[in-house]
Amino acid sequence: MHQQALDKVNAAARHPDAQAGFVRQLDLRIAHHLSQLSPAPARLVEAARDAMGSGKRLRPYLLHLVAGDAADGDAVLDMAVALEMVHTASLIVDDLPSMDNALLRRGRPTTHARFGEATAILTAIGLLNHAISIANGLNGMDDGQRGALVSILSGVMGWQGLVAGQELDLNGFSDADGADDALDRITRINALKTGALLCAAVEAGAILGGREDGKRSLLRRFGEDLGQAFQIADDLIDMLSDSAATGKDCQKDVGKETYLAVYGADEALRRCRALLASADEALVGAGLSPDPFRCMIDAIFTPMLDRVPQAAPKAGAAR
Amino acid sequence: MHQQALDKVNAAARHPDAQAGFVRQLDLRIAHHLSQLSPAPARLVEAARDAMGSGKRLRPYLLHLVAGDAADGDAVLDMAVALEMVHTASLIVDDLPSMDNALLRRGRPTTHARFGEATAILTAIGLLNHAISIANGLNGMDDGQRGALVSILSGVMGWQGLVAGQELDLNGFSDADGADDALDRITRINALKTGALLCAAVEAGAILGGREDGKRSLLRRFGEDLGQAFQIADDLIDMLSDSAATGKDCQKDVGKETYLAVYGADEALRRCRALLASADEALVGAGLSPDPFRCMIDAIFTPMLDRVPQAAPKAGAAR
Repeated sequence: MHQQALDKVNAAARHPDAQAGFVRQLDLRIAHHLSQLSPAPARLVEAARDAMGSGKRLRPYLLHLVAGDAADGDAVLDMAVALEMVHTASLIVDDLPSMDNALLRRGRPTTHARFGEATAILTAIGLLNHAISIANGLNGMDDGQRGALVSILSGVMGWQGLVAGQELDLNGFSDADGADDALDRITRINALKTGALLCAAVEAGAILGGREDGKRSLLRRFGEDLGQAFQIADDLIDMLSDSAATGKDCQKDVGKETYLAVYGADEALRRCRALLASADEALVGAGLSPDPFRCMIDAIFTPMLDRVPQAAPKAGAAR
Repeated sequence: MHQQALDKVNAAARHPDAQAGFVRQLDLRIAHHLSQLSPAPARLVEAARDAMGSGKRLRPYLLHLVAGDAADGDAVLDMAVALEMVHTASLIVDDLPSMDNALLRRGRPTTHARFGEATAILTAIGLLNHAISIANGLNGMDDGQRGALVSILSGVMGWQGLVAGQELDLNGFSDADGADDALDRITRINALKTGALLCAAVEAGAILGGREDGKRSLLRRFGEDLGQAFQIADDLIDMLSDSAATGKDCQKDVGKETYLAVYGADEALRRCRALLASADEALVGAGLSPDPFRCMIDAIFTPMLDRVPQAAPKAGAAR
């Protein structure tokens, strides 16, 4: 085999190890931060540990990749923990009885199912605040960087982030929200609910890695496209799978206005692939070495999209 | 009348006007910040406006008094809005069906009663995040001050603040929380649920007013004592009043471990007055002009404590 091709194979084989190595470090850092919560009430700490105990760690790894090897490793790990706390808080909130009313997440009982609704809400708020305090207390940053990282976190959960996406997803658009066509509504909800946190990971990584400002809009497009693609793949899985396969409550989206529901599974699959191609193009344009990103994205999307039958049923038929 | 005595009477008469003047400015600043929330979903903005529409504005005024006239007026107003947002968010959360299940607050339907539980939770989280972003974006601060103000806000709502107090209040202390006697448990819950936000107002005021570090522990004691006193007075009112008089659901504390329930109303009244005296002493010790504080505190506590009959029934009798 040609040496260049061999290098490529070896590099591809190294990436999953690199990701697993990062996740091991991250899990240790998460445990460290959670051990600092005492003297918080023991039940809250237990609920936080339980909720943070597993996950794909996609956003932290994305942050790590964008930050690159030149970034301060400790700051990257701390900020990765903060992002994962915000992500976990958003899942706890989404799963609540008054929202998606889900009892399973990552194959285990959701936080409210195990600890009760009140403790779940308080744990989510505690995690959000702790994420802010981690970013606000980062060492080795200049104050402008620290302020920007705090701003990313408070923005992603706020009025123009996850909270807005969840409100629109649950209660729909009012006239004042001005979204007349389905594609606009779907794209906005996906951007707020999924894209915002991926963009936050990418933007925080760009700050920590000192990426030049000119590349940031391309990195942002990468995060946005990835978010849209991820949500479409998630909707496909929700329709086609059962809880045993995904580890969370499925067919929760029946009757919801999703890309899948409006355009059918074939078109959703096509759109998902086009978004991934666009994300890849943005990544290459931003000058980042694409291989580890591609490896991570393949590892997420291939098992999701492989489950979709070639001649998938139109979503309308399933409603 | 002696000139000095006359000055004192005039000064006392000026304080309520000064408070009302500050509250008018604050309400305009609140409206300004809420007008910046768009393009957040219209229902969320409406719920935030509704929740922030009224209130005693005690914490903002306390911040303003501690900051003093030398502080930057704009920064004080912005930080006062941030504190009121955190306070409002905590009330929305406390009132939820899974917590105190209250339908009335400040004489009007609670946020979840009017907008539904999901929107109420999302509004509370949105307000918390917005408070952080206000503090993080304050002009005219050096970066150390801005970081300290962000830290105060994320701390007050977090694991060692309101979230912890609410968890302990709802679900009690576990063995690991180590609080063996009733007075310790009651004092800790009151400190977390009520004292934390008053201390946050005082500490933020001290930062904005450039108060010397040596005075801050006395100012903190002032906030803590005031918080304990306030909670005891609130418990007395809860037991003795009806909703028409207080504008919120009453007799919610029946069966709860409060200072009133354990020690009876006479002792609760005595303790409340002793705490107010201790708060006053700390204030004078910190070198702040006490008159406007006394005027504000009298205006809050006199109507509350005057409702308590001289020979108040023991709380045990009401259980």
